[in-house]
Amino acid sequence: MGEKTSVIPAFWLAVTEVNSPPVKSFNAKLSEHISATGSHLCVGLDITPEALQMNYSTLDDLKAHTRKVIKATAGLAAVYKPNLAFFERWGSAGIEWLEETMEWIGESALTIGDAKRGDIGNTGRQYATSLFEYFGFDAVTVNPYMGRDAIEPFIQDGERGAFILCRTSNASASDIQDNKRNGERLFESVARLVFELNSNDNLGLVVGGTSATEIAGIRKLAPGLPFLIPGIGAQGGDLETSFRSGNTNGIAVINVSRSIIFAGNQSAKDIRTEAQRYVQIMQDLK
Amino acid sequence: MGEKTSVIPAFWLAVTEVNSPPVKSFNAKLSEHISATGSHLCVGLDITPEALQMNYSTLDDLKAHTRKVIKATAGLAAVYKPNLAFFERWGSAGIEWLEETMEWIGESALTIGDAKRGDIGNTGRQYATSLFEYFGFDAVTVNPYMGRDAIEPFIQDGERGAFILCRTSNASASDIQDNKRNGERLFESVARLVFELNSNDNLGLVVGGTSATEIAGIRKLAPGLPFLIPGIGAQGGDLETSFRSGNTNGIAVINVSRSIIFAGNQSAKDIRTEAQRYVQIMQDLK
Repeated sequence: MGEKTSVIPAFWLAVTEVNSPPVKSFNAKLSEHISATGSHLCVGLDITPEALQMNYSTLDDLKAHTRKVIKATAGLAAVYKPNLAFFERWGSAGIEWLEETMEWIGESALTIGDAKRGDIGNTGRQYATSLFEYFGFDAVTVNPYMGRDAIEPFIQDGERGAFILCRTSNASASDIQDNKRNGERLFESVARLVFELNSNDNLGLVVGGTSATEIAGIRKLAPGLPFLIPGIGAQGGDLETSFRSGNTNGIAVINVSRSIIFAGNQSAKDIRTEAQRYVQIMQDLK
Repeated sequence: MGEKTSVIPAFWLAVTEVNSPPVKSFNAKLSEHISATGSHLCVGLDITPEALQMNYSTLDDLKAHTRKVIKATAGLAAVYKPNLAFFERWGSAGIEWLEETMEWIGESALTIGDAKRGDIGNTGRQYATSLFEYFGFDAVTVNPYMGRDAIEPFIQDGERGAFILCRTSNASASDIQDNKRNGERLFESVARLVFELNSNDNLGLVVGGTSATEIAGIRKLAPGLPFLIPGIGAQGGDLETSFRSGNTNGIAVINVSRSIIFAGNQSAKDIRTEAQRYVQIMQDLK
């Protein structure tokens, strides 16, 4: 992280090119990381004062809970997914909290910046620079409404990944995602488009756990792509069907936010127990 | 702006309720403001060091240019549209720059936060709190991919507005926006949906100036809704057709970014001259 884009002298680029290991694509990195940890769990960091039981009143209290969650789930969370909305709510001080959160996670797990950005041209490139270079996320979520132009800024660096919104887990998803072309629903077109664009092996799809029965259909259109599946836990998605369908012919990453980060009496012990429970359920399903 | 959500005592709410003027909807406020200023110009704040001619190297230099643009276009810009990507690129320090930018604009014009957020439930509410309450934007841009659930957090406060992405100005917009349902293309469904949801008179549409010929068709589906029209200037959109079609049976707000903020030799004089030129063209078209 740094305030400026740095200018790297050409001779240095030449040196690092010779010595650097071969580039590993994000999807390969994700797959190896999940095999190594034995966990498909992504812990979503959606921390609000309203959800905390104690009388939290300052950002320092929210930061303390963030550290608690990260420590308590260490070794269980294959991935952390900070949700940018929850940090942006507090302006620049909230973004500092996000910067600290990225440091606390460090190299212990992969990170997905849940930003759902989607913009074109120079604006898209600024978002990619922000999320990948400034904050250092391994991957991000992206909104495809503006078409492939909105996805491309996030494809260029094969070591960084992008999960494109495909089928979302909310009730009104069908307002937009059921529109058809050539007999195919929009979310199916998105799955097909993203599969096509995956030449750097760094794209995946966001597929809501509450539309578990549809996951198998989407998997057919996008074999091999990792699926990030939110909506499990507090939102009531079906973990078993989602996991089995998503984890066939590709990897499923299951995101759980509230049920873990505010588990039980919100102690480190209760948080860890709940994370462990999810990891175990998925291990039993494999 | 403030770090915490404030708790207002009940008696104070009672007092302000008696004394406060009747609520004016965002769309009414926009319409009156444009009549009063005689300008339909929105100046987009997309400031990058790469686009600046001098050897800019710190955020202070970018801030100085931001102040220059705001001062130079005072009285000509009916609306300013900070593009959040360009601030986020610099992390928390960039968000401080955005906070300062909002202070520099002050009450001199309306503000649209070009964030293109679109998320559901609690996440959507956090984004609305961030943009309306923390940063104090009068309106925002919103991405409708997740359906009406993603729009609703931005509708509640009638004094604040939301411009929903409908037809965007980029080449690949058709990847998604041309999908059909019941013979209607997706962007037409979005126009219809937003028109339906406009019970608080605070919604509008983003319609790209590069699809100028389509604007008249969208206007038929959403009479009375304000249209925010980007893509004019550097992006090559047709100002005349866009303005005439958009400003019939509703108001057109024309966004120009690069052509104004980096005009000529980037002096205050050249910036003001270019802004004045756009205002005049639109006045001549009315």
